[in-house]
Amino acid sequence: MAVIKEAGAFSFSWSDAVGLSCWRNRIGLRGIDVRSSFLKPAKAKKVFSIASLTTSRAAISGENILQMEATVGKNIVWHKSSVEKFDREELLKQKGCVIWVTGLSGSGKSTLACALSRGLHSRGKLTYILDGDNVRHGLNSDLSFKAEDRAENIRRIGEVAKLFADAGIICIASLISPYRKDRDACRALMPEGDFIEVFLDVPLELCEARDPKGLYKLARSGKIKGFTGISAPYEPPVNCEIVLQQKVGDCVSPCVMAETVISYLEEKGYLQA
Amino acid sequence: MAVIKEAGAFSFSWSDAVGLSCWRNRIGLRGIDVRSSFLKPAKAKKVFSIASLTTSRAAISGENILQMEATVGKNIVWHKSSVEKFDREELLKQKGCVIWVTGLSGSGKSTLACALSRGLHSRGKLTYILDGDNVRHGLNSDLSFKAEDRAENIRRIGEVAKLFADAGIICIASLISPYRKDRDACRALMPEGDFIEVFLDVPLELCEARDPKGLYKLARSGKIKGFTGISAPYEPPVNCEIVLQQKVGDCVSPCVMAETVISYLEEKGYLQA
Repeated sequence: MAVIKEAGAFSFSWSDAVGLSCWRNRIGLRGIDVRSSFLKPAKAKKVFSIASLTTSRAAISGENILQMEATVGKNIVWHKSSVEKFDREELLKQKGCVIWVTGLSGSGKSTLACALSRGLHSRGKLTYILDGDNVRHGLNSDLSFKAEDRAENIRRIGEVAKLFADAGIICIASLISPYRKDRDACRALMPEGDFIEVFLDVPLELCEARDPKGLYKLARSGKIKGFTGISAPYEPPVNCEIVLQQKVGDCVSPCVMAETVISYLEEKGYLQA
Repeated sequence: MAVIKEAGAFSFSWSDAVGLSCWRNRIGLRGIDVRSSFLKPAKAKKVFSIASLTTSRAAISGENILQMEATVGKNIVWHKSSVEKFDREELLKQKGCVIWVTGLSGSGKSTLACALSRGLHSRGKLTYILDGDNVRHGLNSDLSFKAEDRAENIRRIGEVAKLFADAGIICIASLISPYRKDRDACRALMPEGDFIEVFLDVPLELCEARDPKGLYKLARSGKIKGFTGISAPYEPPVNCEIVLQQKVGDCVSPCVMAETVISYLEEKGYLQA
């Protein structure tokens, strides 16, 4: 019977042992994953060298122990969680991230999100749109439009977007998110580089002329209070990753804008594992 | 210039038009998706027949109109959202669903979730685990353990799981979820068949003997109030899809249990598009 000698504090629990048991095939094939790609700090749960192994209620087979003994002296990465972001990204041939589309009501956020989703899907990439309005029908149906609830709406969408990115998906969050501090709080949840802020820089007059939901009309007549751009501020991003500008009389098509974002993703390596 | 003749109430907005513009290739290839598979009510956003087409600010090219004119007289499904669940499932070669793992603390929910995730990943399937404890560090970090917050914890995880299933992912939700009404409320969010409830039926004495987090000890000594199985009830499912039973002295390995769930998914067609 082998014994594990710890390189760091390590408690060998029932579920760890079971996890190890499930890893038999992978261990057998890959020599317990000593590849350098597994040694990134974010991936490495436990790095230790095997000298020996004690089991309590652990269901570790002789086969595992043999395989593990074969690697004595090497550093081993312990995957406590069975499938990691890295594994899902390999499966999908892309990197999970969040594309955060911000802008005034009527600036074309949902339209860009759709065009982007279509463009990426046609390249075989998996995307998911979190639309501010849609999420209010489900997860955020308990929230009103008062200030603290609007902030909570954004916080929750940020947290869910983070989960989607962790799942390996290119998550497109599309919501006005008028305040810098709320957007920055969402950015802070994510590993650096995985939060891609896209500002739809469209003049208020153009958004108001479109008024696709008739909301500007209601806001102007005072029927909606605290409407972004009319009776509440919109704070444009200061250092966002992408600005997509539209001017009165010079509108870029959503497909062209989507291609700009896709080129960015391509350049930054998000469209490969 | 053609004109759209509506089969139902239909307002042709700027973003619809843009969506249509983006659909050009697909329209060209598929004849505007008249295939019966697109005619399921859940997929069909708008079914109408094209007789003609009016545009306002719409960026619809002559090419679209030609393609659309070629289908005059056929029923057409209008995809308002650019990429649907169906499309993502085709990409992933699987069907999005929620596997809801319920059971006492220490019954092995997280361990099963990991084994299941690994088993499915090795078959090339995309999964994501929503773990009750983990989600409390992010999305649900504002919730306490009092009754209403525990219910809200479950509701939010149900809503997020629904989004993941809609993304085409096999979402594994792993949380005690002791009350039938909370689990049933989550089931009610999903299309029929897409909520697969898995009950880890493990005797309390076995869970308590394992006590992986030392919580039973604290509950017995009165340091944790309202602990499921000790000082709060657990309501076992009545009509769940899968029961995985463990007995004292007769433990089934998590890998074997995972295979039972995978066989169920295979049989029900979830492991193909």
